Amino acid sequence: MLHRTICGRNEEDFFQELIRFHGFAAPGLVLGGFLVDWARELVGADVEFDAIVETTHCLPDVVQLFTPCTVGNGWMKVLDWDKFAVSLYDRRKLTGYRVWLDLGKLRSFPHLYNWYMQLVPKKDLPLDVLHEAILNAGRAPLSACSITVTRHYERHKKKKIAVCPQCGEAYTASQGLKCPACQGKGYYEASILV
Amino acid sequence: MLHRTICGRNEEDFFQELIRFHGFAAPGLVLGGFLVDWARELVGADVEFDAIVETTHCLPDVVQLFTPCTVGNGWMKVLDWDKFAVSLYDRRKLTGYRVWLDLGKLRSFPHLYNWYMQLVPKKDLPLDVLHEAILNAGRAPLSACSITVTRHYERHKKKKIAVCPQCGEAYTASQGLKCPACQGKGYYEASILV
Repeated sequence: MLHRTICGRNEEDFFQELIRFHGFAAPGLVLGGFLVDWARELVGADVEFDAIVETTHCLPDVVQLFTPCTVGNGWMKVLDWDKFAVSLYDRRKLTGYRVWLDLGKLRSFPHLYNWYMQLVPKKDLPLDVLHEAILNAGRAPLSACSITVTRHYERHKKKKIAVCPQCGEAYTASQGLKCPACQGKGYYEASILV
Repeated sequence: MLHRTICGRNEEDFFQELIRFHGFAAPGLVLGGFLVDWARELVGADVEFDAIVETTHCLPDVVQLFTPCTVGNGWMKVLDWDKFAVSLYDRRKLTGYRVWLDLGKLRSFPHLYNWYMQLVPKKDLPLDVLHEAILNAGRAPLSACSITVTRHYERHKKKKIAVCPQCGEAYTASQGLKCPACQGKGYYEASILV
């Protein structure tokens, strides 16, 4: 088998880590493992890289588990495009690689194509069938190219802090005279103070 | 000491997991541990909960490490408000708890107050001083209240897929006739196909 390890783990450890973090080994995670594995290899071991992920589904968790980039450390940005692609790039030079699921290549893997394109009901493609298809396919349904990053590379540094005159909590001053919640963007009704 | 464990881990394991995932034990992570710990306790062990985090800095990583909620499984939403607060809520009943850093209470902890409000240069507050102050303070600088969630509770399900006529990649059909990148929202210049 071409890929005896995925993201530097043997298959069993790879699956264990996915399940522990994400709750279960969703097919998108396993497939994502091959994207991240290839992107890491292309960008090289000595490069300090940032990540841009083009979907909120599954793939961000693979990046967070198997690269140093997370939401909370600011090295991973997530675009809500629902494209199954990830870019890793040198955070100083802004050069790197994008790896994506290539539909033209995916057609050679009917189970995977039918799953990804939502052509058959979920119950007709059990998880173990999909896992096996993804592991057997490896990098074959993927493509990669070198890129120069032109947007979304800004570091997300903490900005000047203000205290909201209404709720008394701290927020970023640049957001306005009140915090977003007190501006009416809140997502909750508060009741009893604990 | 009141909190011998944080998020179900002893102190050493807690720090180890933070460092492994995030790269280093940023003060915001350690403080975040107490928010998540309290929110989990309030929401109860038997409740299937979702999370809403009100900052992109540090706190999302604590939630992802010490609750079942991640970006990639859709159970955690991140608001870019820079408010140090997290809500955990029953995903069916939409009731739960919000825990936040309470500036009124934080004033009793000068090192923490000065750090969070950016009142002293970073070099004057070494990491070990901050860690100790945070661990000693525990939940004392926090407040919590029960909430009903009124927004952002929608499940982020995969929507109908289309194939972009320009790049040939799959994307969510509702985004338009072309994928976001081919609409001009792209973040990279591609060069050599690998």
